[in-house]
Amino acid sequence: VRLPSIVLNTRWDDATWILTSAFIIFTMQSGFGLLESGSVSQKNEVNIMVKNAVDVLFGGISYWMFGYGLSFDKIGSDQEKNHPFVGLGEFFVDETDPERVGNVFSHFFFHASFATTATTIVSGAMAERTKLEAYIIFSFLNTLIYCFPAHWMWDCAGWLKAMGVVDIAGAGAVHLVGGVTGLIATLMLKPRTGRFHDGVELPAMGSPTNTVFGMFMLWWGWLGFNCGSTYGISHNKWILAARSAACTITASIGGGMTAITLSYLGKRRKFDVTFLINGVLGSLVSITAMCALAHPWEAYIIGVVGSLIACTGCLLTERLRIDDPVSVVPVHALGAIWSLMSVGIFGRKDALAEKLTVYDGLLAGGGFKLLGIQALAIISIITWTAITSFVLLKLIDLTLGLRVPLHEEILGADLVEHSINGTYDKSSHEWRDRDGKL
Amino acid sequence: VRLPSIVLNTRWDDATWILTSAFIIFTMQSGFGLLESGSVSQKNEVNIMVKNAVDVLFGGISYWMFGYGLSFDKIGSDQEKNHPFVGLGEFFVDETDPERVGNVFSHFFFHASFATTATTIVSGAMAERTKLEAYIIFSFLNTLIYCFPAHWMWDCAGWLKAMGVVDIAGAGAVHLVGGVTGLIATLMLKPRTGRFHDGVELPAMGSPTNTVFGMFMLWWGWLGFNCGSTYGISHNKWILAARSAACTITASIGGGMTAITLSYLGKRRKFDVTFLINGVLGSLVSITAMCALAHPWEAYIIGVVGSLIACTGCLLTERLRIDDPVSVVPVHALGAIWSLMSVGIFGRKDALAEKLTVYDGLLAGGGFKLLGIQALAIISIITWTAITSFVLLKLIDLTLGLRVPLHEEILGADLVEHSINGTYDKSSHEWRDRDGKL
Amino acid sequence: VRLPSIVLNTRWDDATWILTSAFIIFTMQSGFGLLESGSVSQKNEVNIMVKNAVDVLFGGISYWMFGYGLSFDKIGSDQEKNHPFVGLGEFFVDETDPERVGNVFSHFFFHASFATTATTIVSGAMAERTKLEAYIIFSFLNTLIYCFPAHWMWDCAGWLKAMGVVDIAGAGAVHLVGGVTGLIATLMLKPRTGRFHDGVELPAMGSPTNTVFGMFMLWWGWLGFNCGSTYGISHNKWILAARSAACTITASIGGGMTAITLSYLGKRRKFDVTFLINGVLGSLVSITAMCALAHPWEAYIIGVVGSLIACTGCLLTERLRIDDPVSVVPVHALGAIWSLMSVGIFGRKDALAEKLTVYDGLLAGGGFKLLGIQALAIISIITWTAITSFVLLKLIDLTLGLRVPLHEEILGADLVEHSINGTYDKSSHEWRDRDGKL
Repeated sequence: VRLPSIVLNTRWDDATWILTSAFIIFTMQSGFGLLESGSVSQKNEVNIMVKNAVDVLFGGISYWMFGYGLSFDKIGSDQEKNHPFVGLGEFFVDETDPERVGNVFSHFFFHASFATTATTIVSGAMAERTKLEAYIIFSFLNTLIYCFPAHWMWDCAGWLKAMGVVDIAGAGAVHLVGGVTGLIATLMLKPRTGRFHDGVELPAMGSPTNTVFGMFMLWWGWLGFNCGSTYGISHNKWILAARSAACTITASIGGGMTAITLSYLGKRRKFDVTFLINGVLGSLVSITAMCALAHPWEAYIIGVVGSLIACTGCLLTERLRIDDPVSVVPVHALGAIWSLMSVGIFGRKDALAEKLTVYDGLLAGGGFKLLGIQALAIISIITWTAITSFVLLKLIDLTLGLRVPLHEEILGADLVEHSINGTYDKSSHEWRDRDGKL
Repeated sequence: VRLPSIVLNTRWDDATWILTSAFIIFTMQSGFGLLESGSVSQKNEVNIMVKNAVDVLFGGISYWMFGYGLSFDKIGSDQEKNHPFVGLGEFFVDETDPERVGNVFSHFFFHASFATTATTIVSGAMAERTKLEAYIIFSFLNTLIYCFPAHWMWDCAGWLKAMGVVDIAGAGAVHLVGGVTGLIATLMLKPRTGRFHDGVELPAMGSPTNTVFGMFMLWWGWLGFNCGSTYGISHNKWILAARSAACTITASIGGGMTAITLSYLGKRRKFDVTFLINGVLGSLVSITAMCALAHPWEAYIIGVVGSLIACTGCLLTERLRIDDPVSVVPVHALGAIWSLMSVGIFGRKDALAEKLTVYDGLLAGGGFKLLGIQALAIISIITWTAITSFVLLKLIDLTLGLRVPLHEEILGADLVEHSINGTYDKSSHEWRDRDGKL
Repeated sequence: VRLPSIVLNTRWDDATWILTSAFIIFTMQSGFGLLESGSVSQKNEVNIMVKNAVDVLFGGISYWMFGYGLSFDKIGSDQEKNHPFVGLGEFFVDETDPERVGNVFSHFFFHASFATTATTIVSGAMAERTKLEAYIIFSFLNTLIYCFPAHWMWDCAGWLKAMGVVDIAGAGAVHLVGGVTGLIATLMLKPRTGRFHDGVELPAMGSPTNTVFGMFMLWWGWLGFNCGSTYGISHNKWILAARSAACTITASIGGGMTAITLSYLGKRRKFDVTFLINGVLGSLVSITAMCALAHPWEAYIIGVVGSLIACTGCLLTERLRIDDPVSVVPVHALGAIWSLMSVGIFGRKDALAEKLTVYDGLLAGGGFKLLGIQALAIISIITWTAITSFVLLKLIDLTLGLRVPLHEEILGADLVEHSINGTYDKSSHEWRDRDGKL
């Protein structure tokens, strides 16, 4: 068999970049795992790690089955015939045409790493009180929530993309979708038992060291996330990737510095670990939408504001008695809203990224048009996500039930679901510790 | 000095890929370390981490001295004059010819990361009862066991390679060799004291969180392992790497889903962490042989079967009273046998990988020829490995002794070998805790 | 807007390498974090992780503001007009010229990962007794100490570089600067309370498993550090990167083997974890200066000597009653001195690296010239670093105070600074445990 010459001379540099980035992004699953499992009480530590594996397994299989197909139309297909609301591309992804094998698989693999990340975000909001069976079903179905906004924002035929929306690395499709789904889930689950009772303090972090280590892992994973979103390095894409790296790091610096200052001033000269983590992650979410297009000083400002939003957002969810164990709503939902808005403010046409930016933003003299498009994207995604996640979670709640019984919540999921440090009988509700005592 | 033009215009893209993959593969040492040290009792946690460092140090030096030379003939040497059973290439690897420096060092470095992984697999089977001195000698000599099968399977002159065997990323040379050596080692060491006594339960995992984290690290390391085994990205190698990534992830998804289902059905609706880990790793081993050649749905099936084999294999070793602390035999030995067989079933000639695949497999209408070659490889490797590892381990046992005395086993290697949490005198057998009490 | 053709046809392969290396280098922050936090007592574990985040945040911002500009002159600027002592390049790094954007940002990002590493080294020496406020100010100002030697050693206009000094990956600018600053800091801080009192033992490592895991992370991060220092892979740079990988791993093998042997012989057949870690890291520091130029057997020897220096150096600092909690001085300062000297001994002109090596070293028949230049670099860097770090730390000590009060040291920084496991009032000095008891 002779291969067509195009295959033999094509973009392998881009493939390296996409695959390497995806490898780095996959480390974010364990980053989220450690961050979350270190944040909750020790009785749920292992359970959280398992949930993060479930995200890859059940979120991954549905993305392979229908998620990628609903997100993206076939590579090389006639753009005009594609649907603006939903993709009809590769289902049960496979490819035998030598000219397309490499592009299809690298593109699918890269986006699978994004899709499973979106699911992982939700797991934080549902921590310490969700049935694992229910979570497994949810992580399979969450792909349905995710892939529509992904199509709107990233596919050339997507209706928001066609309007000129800018979202380089998934502030909308990944973080806003994940954050809003997390909000719906935590509201439907209700707070952990005793969480907002007077006089009862927040449970201590099981392992703050693991939590900070998880933050570091997410930090470097984010570099792959943002820099890989150029889809390659050929032509001038490498320039965008380099700018993305510089802006991602300056934004996170702004965010971390702000969080430390806030904690120092507001918490009697203490350096609260939760502030630091929410500040760094909030700023990383904030720079996601325009990472490859910003100036470093803009990235710094965007990070500072993102950190302020994430840190004060925590106080707000606390006041509203929304139980959000690892601050998914302020960091991912509020951070993503700011991220998409910030493009409308700071964005501009860019000679190096002509396909990515059609309009100038507010400060570049383009008026409110880009800001309006970005706001429309925010409203559309929130509406879509709130409705679909409510329906899906309600269906699961009515059939399987979302929340574990009270005594199982008190015993902790490590014992109940995984027989760590003892055994528990799900039928008789009897449990024994490791020495066999009841 | 003027450089020949070939050096200045050659394959640096391939070098990037090989080196980046090797960096990722080196993270597998700590992945195995955390997986193993989290699985054993806390009194041996640090010792396991040290053993994983020993694998790189003493396994690495012997690979540099004679392992690489016995595995691969010199790059560019006359293939017809090379020996089918053993390589006679670079010993004490060095190179000064500017035209060869880059290729020799990147090829050596990549394969050193493979070789040390093969040794690391064995450390799991020997956990909690092996003298560290003996293990150090073993890890140095294990290269002798490993490099012959590596030559047969991968070097163009190797007798199995010449017959048309297919083993892209080392199911045979790495996992089957490691798994069989582990089996011989655990049989020779005998079970940990009290392991199969009636009424005595399996010791609890020291740190299940670290174990799951270790699994995640291996998962992403495997992406480097399987995708890097294309040896580059130029021409159509990038296409194979992309297919490798997609198949590795779908296989692991199949494996993990199967393990979770098995545990749920077989363990009274529990989600056993050991099942999950063995299922994911078993499926990753299973896809290793044909990662770059499969369709994703084939990879999924291969992963499902691999997970079934790994999970039921654990019950088998348990029934046979083989004490295998981290399931090395079912995951790596049985998984690798299935991996090599699966190529005989699902394999086919591939236009994109003409040098890698000579025959069609069973389902592609090629009859039993490829399956026979793969079976021959399995039998040859098992025979070779069983004999050589028996001889080597026996020699060590007769001279140094493999197993620690009973009281040292009970005290734990962290105290005995590393003076963690106290001191122990290897001559008088006295030990003191940190407060100085006997 | 039409882009100039140079941008469209330029070195994206190099950019991939630089960015990928920098991603890997950023994992070293968490590697150092785990190594240090696992080594200290548990009451300071989280505090160390936060300090490592502070290094990226406050060290990163000052590097962006003035560190990069003082280190490197503008890319493409007239070399003859630049200053040999200090760079006057990009301050508040930004770039809009499409022809320069990619180079400026990738170069800045890569070197930011180096600069924050230099600061992180110091944090180990200051562990368990430094005020976090003081450390934050220090990490911001440390850039001033670092960027001058970076200019001398790496910038084409730097006075040592112009003389022909060789320091591929920062033995001088990163490790010697970090180690000497650490020495000054620990001398000024004085030992931890009770550290050298008779009969009081060294506090136990909080988590030896995390410490060894941190060593593994640094090990693989060092591969990015040393291989990325070729600044790319185009032309023959990929060959240097491959040689760098091979030499880095053989050096560390030599170092680790030496440390294990030393511990076995000197510590009554014990395998001391501290020896292993210091030996591996000491050898990695040692090969940093000539990683891309050595033969593997030379790298092995350099690693063996580096490990001997690091391990015996620990005994020396102990004897001199210098309290250096994670052996920063022997590993980084002494290791770096040997690293720079070793180039003078083993170095030679290299056809593959003409710009990097101007003179032959001692063994290559070049006499003492190169050795003299390397010695001059060592003396200059030590003098510069000792003076500037003394002045900066003294200024901080006289204003904010460097050391925490005794009762805060005894309580531990996790409680005092981060309210882990209780609360502490910095004004009234009252503290309560988690149950609210005083």
